Amino acid sequence: AGWEPVNVREFERHAQLMLSKNAFDYYASGANDMVTLRENRAAFNRLRLRPRILRDVSMVDTSTSVLGQKISSPICIAPTAMQRMAHDSGECATAGAAAKAGALMTLSSWSTTSLEDVAKAGGPGGARWFQLYVYKDRKITEQLVKRALAAGYTALAVTVDTPVLGRREADMRNRFKLPEHLTMGNFVSAGGAHASGTKDGGNDSGLAAYVASLIDRTLDWNDIKWLRTICGSMKIVVKGVMTAEDAAESVRQGVDGIWVSNHGARQLDTTPATIEVLPEVVAAVSGRCEIYLDGGICRGTDVFKALALGAKAVFIGRPVLWGLAHSGEEGVSKVLKLLHDELVMALQLTGCTRVSSASRSMVTHQTSYYSKL
Amino acid sequence: AGWEPVNVREFERHAQLMLSKNAFDYYASGANDMVTLRENRAAFNRLRLRPRILRDVSMVDTSTSVLGQKISSPICIAPTAMQRMAHDSGECATAGAAAKAGALMTLSSWSTTSLEDVAKAGGPGGARWFQLYVYKDRKITEQLVKRALAAGYTALAVTVDTPVLGRREADMRNRFKLPEHLTMGNFVSAGGAHASGTKDGGNDSGLAAYVASLIDRTLDWNDIKWLRTICGSMKIVVKGVMTAEDAAESVRQGVDGIWVSNHGARQLDTTPATIEVLPEVVAAVSGRCEIYLDGGICRGTDVFKALALGAKAVFIGRPVLWGLAHSGEEGVSKVLKLLHDELVMALQLTGCTRVSSASRSMVTHQTSYYSKL
Amino acid sequence: AGWEPVNVREFERHAQLMLSKNAFDYYASGANDMVTLRENRAAFNRLRLRPRILRDVSMVDTSTSVLGQKISSPICIAPTAMQRMAHDSGECATAGAAAKAGALMTLSSWSTTSLEDVAKAGGPGGARWFQLYVYKDRKITEQLVKRALAAGYTALAVTVDTPVLGRREADMRNRFKLPEHLTMGNFVSAGGAHASGTKDGGNDSGLAAYVASLIDRTLDWNDIKWLRTICGSMKIVVKGVMTAEDAAESVRQGVDGIWVSNHGARQLDTTPATIEVLPEVVAAVSGRCEIYLDGGICRGTDVFKALALGAKAVFIGRPVLWGLAHSGEEGVSKVLKLLHDELVMALQLTGCTRVSSASRSMVTHQTSYYSKL
Amino acid sequence: AGWEPVNVREFERHAQLMLSKNAFDYYASGANDMVTLRENRAAFNRLRLRPRILRDVSMVDTSTSVLGQKISSPICIAPTAMQRMAHDSGECATAGAAAKAGALMTLSSWSTTSLEDVAKAGGPGGARWFQLYVYKDRKITEQLVKRALAAGYTALAVTVDTPVLGRREADMRNRFKLPEHLTMGNFVSAGGAHASGTKDGGNDSGLAAYVASLIDRTLDWNDIKWLRTICGSMKIVVKGVMTAEDAAESVRQGVDGIWVSNHGARQLDTTPATIEVLPEVVAAVSGRCEIYLDGGICRGTDVFKALALGAKAVFIGRPVLWGLAHSGEEGVSKVLKLLHDELVMALQLTGCTRVSSASRSMVTHQTSYYSKL
Ligand SMILES: Cc1cc2nc3c(=O)[nH]c(=O)nc-3n(C[C@H](O)[C@H](O)[C@H](O)COP(=O)(O)O)c2cc1C
Ligand SMILES: Cc1cc2nc3c(=O)[nH]c(=O)nc-3n(C[C@H](O)[C@H](O)[C@H](O)COP(=O)(O)O)c2cc1C
Ligand SMILES: Cc1cc2nc3c(=O)[nH]c(=O)nc-3n(C[C@H](O)[C@H](O)[C@H](O)COP(=O)(O)O)c2cc1C
Ligand SMILES: Cc1cc2nc3c(=O)[nH]c(=O)nc-3n(C[C@H](O)[C@H](O)[C@H](O)COP(=O)(O)O)c2cc1C
Repeated sequence: AGWEPVNVREFERHAQLMLSKNAFDYYASGANDMVTLRENRAAFNRLRLRPRILRDVSMVDTSTSVLGQKISSPICIAPTAMQRMAHDSGECATAGAAAKAGALMTLSSWSTTSLEDVAKAGGPGGARWFQLYVYKDRKITEQLVKRALAAGYTALAVTVDTPVLGRREADMRNRFKLPEHLTMGNFVSAGGAHASGTKDGGNDSGLAAYVASLIDRTLDWNDIKWLRTICGSMKIVVKGVMTAEDAAESVRQGVDGIWVSNHGARQLDTTPATIEVLPEVVAAVSGRCEIYLDGGICRGTDVFKALALGAKAVFIGRPVLWGLAHSGEEGVSKVLKLLHDELVMALQLTGCTRVSSASRSMVTHQTSYYSKL
Repeated sequence: AGWEPVNVREFERHAQLMLSKNAFDYYASGANDMVTLRENRAAFNRLRLRPRILRDVSMVDTSTSVLGQKISSPICIAPTAMQRMAHDSGECATAGAAAKAGALMTLSSWSTTSLEDVAKAGGPGGARWFQLYVYKDRKITEQLVKRALAAGYTALAVTVDTPVLGRREADMRNRFKLPEHLTMGNFVSAGGAHASGTKDGGNDSGLAAYVASLIDRTLDWNDIKWLRTICGSMKIVVKGVMTAEDAAESVRQGVDGIWVSNHGARQLDTTPATIEVLPEVVAAVSGRCEIYLDGGICRGTDVFKALALGAKAVFIGRPVLWGLAHSGEEGVSKVLKLLHDELVMALQLTGCTRVSSASRSMVTHQTSYYSKL
Repeated sequence: AGWEPVNVREFERHAQLMLSKNAFDYYASGANDMVTLRENRAAFNRLRLRPRILRDVSMVDTSTSVLGQKISSPICIAPTAMQRMAHDSGECATAGAAAKAGALMTLSSWSTTSLEDVAKAGGPGGARWFQLYVYKDRKITEQLVKRALAAGYTALAVTVDTPVLGRREADMRNRFKLPEHLTMGNFVSAGGAHASGTKDGGNDSGLAAYVASLIDRTLDWNDIKWLRTICGSMKIVVKGVMTAEDAAESVRQGVDGIWVSNHGARQLDTTPATIEVLPEVVAAVSGRCEIYLDGGICRGTDVFKALALGAKAVFIGRPVLWGLAHSGEEGVSKVLKLLHDELVMALQLTGCTRVSSASRSMVTHQTSYYSKL
Repeated sequence: AGWEPVNVREFERHAQLMLSKNAFDYYASGANDMVTLRENRAAFNRLRLRPRILRDVSMVDTSTSVLGQKISSPICIAPTAMQRMAHDSGECATAGAAAKAGALMTLSSWSTTSLEDVAKAGGPGGARWFQLYVYKDRKITEQLVKRALAAGYTALAVTVDTPVLGRREADMRNRFKLPEHLTMGNFVSAGGAHASGTKDGGNDSGLAAYVASLIDRTLDWNDIKWLRTICGSMKIVVKGVMTAEDAAESVRQGVDGIWVSNHGARQLDTTPATIEVLPEVVAAVSGRCEIYLDGGICRGTDVFKALALGAKAVFIGRPVLWGLAHSGEEGVSKVLKLLHDELVMALQLTGCTRVSSASRSMVTHQTSYYSKL
């Protein structure tokens, strides 16, 4: 109680004390040697800020918009599965905190609460997207999309980096499974493996087995077209773009947004840090659609750097889980406020009053200074 | 007693043993993850000296001038707040040691001794500048400037990197405040919050709260013009320039000196090391005004490198505090002598007899050698 | 028993617990300061994967061919001496596991089992190459080659990086020797030093003494010509190429394959990592013969990177030894399966369905991103 | 007794156990933060060897010549002061071991044995140079030069990097002095401070005080001319060149050899590693005189790299002291043999049979590979 975390990393350390090993390891770990997990964060720390001086920063406005929807801050919530392992209130708590902060929340397909309940918890004003995993069973997939539309989710974030689940060795050692009292909240009616989720993992990570048996590995651009036919008014965002080539292709295919992500370093190890690929994606897209980024963000200056390099908004995954583990909705609110305060300070100390003022010339790689010396 | 520090880092380690956690953390720490705090020093160690041989170095002269004023050494004293936490004699001890060494001292607005008393302690011969924070209350600001002029300070170093106080997490954890028996020495007559300073910080760093309530976040170039109208014969130096763009603007605005500083890495984390931005500032200024540098200097070779890359003088912040903590005025004298001796040796071992001989070709980045191999 | 390694590095740690210091050190160590040993692995981790999205990866085929022979996976087995120190079943176990996996095995000249017995263990379907050390005694060398041909080995991998044995200091300290109950299985009939192998090493590594007295230091391209005259239908591969110059010369000399190797960092310390020299070798060869690579491979992503940069197949040395130490043939099978599974996943997560789809543009050096920032 | 070091670093660790702190620290330490001390060695490890294959390396010849004098190996002995602190037999033991190995020894001005006795110990066949410090008292300097000539030293290595003694903080803390029973062997007849050497150091390093009072800080190129007038048949080598500019000047001044050295990182900290500046020196000299290098050499591959980059020979300082500390003359012989064996192996494993075969193309910087990836 007495100890109040002062930054996101401290929230993480706190969570490690509070959660079971099964849950914490699932949340915290990355694929294989976790090279990319470290890089996602380290890459931000290799970037340098070029602060401008003597500008009136008494009024700072962090509001912006995504896909035409106004949000109070460019810090959005990424989809993370099974939030009820972190706190009994799970995804509803996240939705509540997001709504109070005026922040956009993306709900995972693998929510431990139904998407309808989460929508209710977020309330009418809450900005929400739905993250979609495409199932082999296209009926189930279609139902999911239709329910998301009906519940007021305004965009589908289609995750394209998970034909198979990445090799997360801690989960393999733990033989990770969803605790008995929890279910895959969106699949209760589907029953069977779909509902019980990861409970029968055998020798491996239970989630890896779940993905192998249920998720569609044939996913390609035709499926994106199909989704467009069934998603109604929902916008389509591809989540998991990591190259200029795929960014260009996404634009050609007419997606509404490109989400630069390496899935929190949980899928393919030794991919670059997301912040490192942002410039090539921005160049390839050349303003033709919005670009978002997640991966390793845990400081206001990280947010600033992503914006300055061309992201319209950023998403945070694990920090929300640490907030949940700390104190449910209140904890998520604390984490959102912490990062918001840090972003405001980053803006003030670089001489900016709006997020759109964060410009390309304010960020440079540390090595750019070496050649001048 | 028996242990005599042989370098600045040992003075720091000694101070850590002597001071309260509240005081030491306030002095030592930097913003957020302290990336820049480490970089300020590490960047010096990435620079390589190219020593010249067979030059008569029997007579070495370290004297130079700043803004037309002769000083015995290019090593000057940066403003650091609340020096009486380090030693009861505080700013007066610093002024005494500076005067004896013929060194320039810059006094902080947030001195725990009045600027008049410090001037007295420095004596008539003491070279002194006054560091100015601009208060929301412009009357108080104007009084401060006029008093500095009257007390013989010859320049105003206007700090432009602190519209809000940087996030120093140790201070947040400590709920840092100025000890009860001390006051903001320049604001005793202003009374109230101005005088008591950081005493009512609440949950956060007391100083952050102080800055938020009293310091002017609207500061811009018009305020520099205004200061010129009230500062009389005092020269104006902008403290906190970190880009070529702002250096060029400073020259256009007619400042007398540019002080490259990231505030000892205490404001915006992940700014570059100051020594790294010096070359771009020097190029932008192109000789049109003097340039100074502070941040991370703790070796004579660091001083040499800054001079060789184009700084007219350097300023040291924390080393003076460690000297104070060691033994008041005597300790500051020791630190000044230590760095002076190291600078003399750096000059001799590079084949220089005057500080002006430290030239661009004598410093290069370590990576410049890689491409030749 | 309860502890099942989840990656190659854990197999290594397990082996360290199981083996004598004499054996483990011989297997694990590299030359001198082991700079290259660390680099062989670190260099893979400095490479970044550029994954492509939205490609149907439901069917993945890892099969390929080397020198016209079809193999089920590009992961082949490098020759490592004295496998019976790891497990009593030694080289036969390796051959058995290789045959079951449809993998190519290369047998060392310094096998602790005769090449005929190993061939028998591999069975008729087993793909196998023979690694040749050229002895001062050319009769013995010739016999060895003829026996390999007779036993169905389809290529000679002539090791060209070992005129003398590298300085492996752990072996010097241990005064490494082959345990009394083992012999150099291919030289039993030659008798004397040839058979007893390393047993009389004196003050130094026994194997270093063995090489100094028996292996031919005059080996040059004329000897490769000579080998061609006696090797019958066997193809000739030079094992130990580390420069573009020698790759080009190899092609001129008409070799069938070039094996990029620094002998597992056991010969000359501070050579580059093998993956680092691959590009210059590929450029020099320009498609005129097949190129293989070994050194430091312990992840499926490592395999992927080598293929993407132009290797036709890769070889693993130590991982097989760790598998043997774990549980003989079963352990080798586990290691092969582990790496195969990881390769399949690397293919799926980069959007590839065949090993030939791993392309140059999917791999880049981490520093390539720095210059874009 | 039982423990036999297998490399130079182990000899160092052994010496640390055997010697007094006063002596070991004096031998081992470098100036200030010892950045350059680490760099001298680390820079060798950043260089990569490009080994060539299939060359007959049965006969390796390490002999070469310096200044026209034939020596059995390019590994020479650098001057290090006060060798009798390491072993009672001191400089005579070094001379004995050098003579037996056919190696060139350079004797320090600050020998704890007279130069005549050392010459006698080396015997008529011993190749020897004398390292000269120029004293304020030019009579004493002249005497020293004449005695060296008379005793058969064939070159003067004039140390040009020591107008003052570098700041070695361990020596400051230890208040380093020469033990009572030893004297500056070349100055016994001069008496007083000259003979007693460092015994009255006061608060500082005794040797720093000695240098400050006796060594000539006015040394310049005119003094080199003067030395030429008194040195008879002895050649003149400048020891301590670290830039292309000074190398070019040295050639213009007609010196016989240029010794690239940063004094074992004991003078000016943050100078580059010597191996890093070799290329620019080689380019500036362009074959007009011989170039030597010392600093950080402790592997045969280090020697190879220096030769390949253009050094005619290398010198080792500390390794000889560690040999002495181990077992006097025998220990020095062991160290010389160890490095000789390692050099022979480096030649064999790169495909060279003579030191002149070590060529520029066989060495490259590790980062040169990055840009190809
Ligand atoms: C525990 C956990 C669960 C996740 N579950 C999902 C998921 O269900 N769907 C999805 O698209 N991404 C999922 N992600 C990836 C996140 O959406 C996001 O890309 C990533 O967490 C961002 O990196 P960060 O955690 O460093 O902020 C998950 C990430 C974590 C850490
Ligand atoms: C404890 C402390 C207090 C400081 N107070 C002030 C201040 O009141 N005004 C100001 O302009 N800068 C202040 N600074 C910044 C210094 O003037 C200077 O920029 C910085 O300390 C230089 O870095 P160094 O400490 O590494 O030498 C302070 C720095 C420290 C460490
Ligand atoms: C214990 C051991 C023994 C080896 N024996 C031989 C050998 O007899 N002949 C040979 O050509 N290479 C030999 N090698 C080198 C391997 O063939 C291969 O080049 C190397 O092990 C690949 O690196 P890795 O161990 O990191 O996979 C040996 C390597 C090891 C580790
Ligand atoms: C203990 C010690 C004493 C030295 N004494 C002298 C000396 O008297 N004169 C001199 O020119 N150089 C002296 N040097 C420098 C050496 O000649 C040489 O430049 C240096 O030791 C080479 O680096 P290494 O020790 O890494 O091989 C000394 C070095 C050491 C370590």
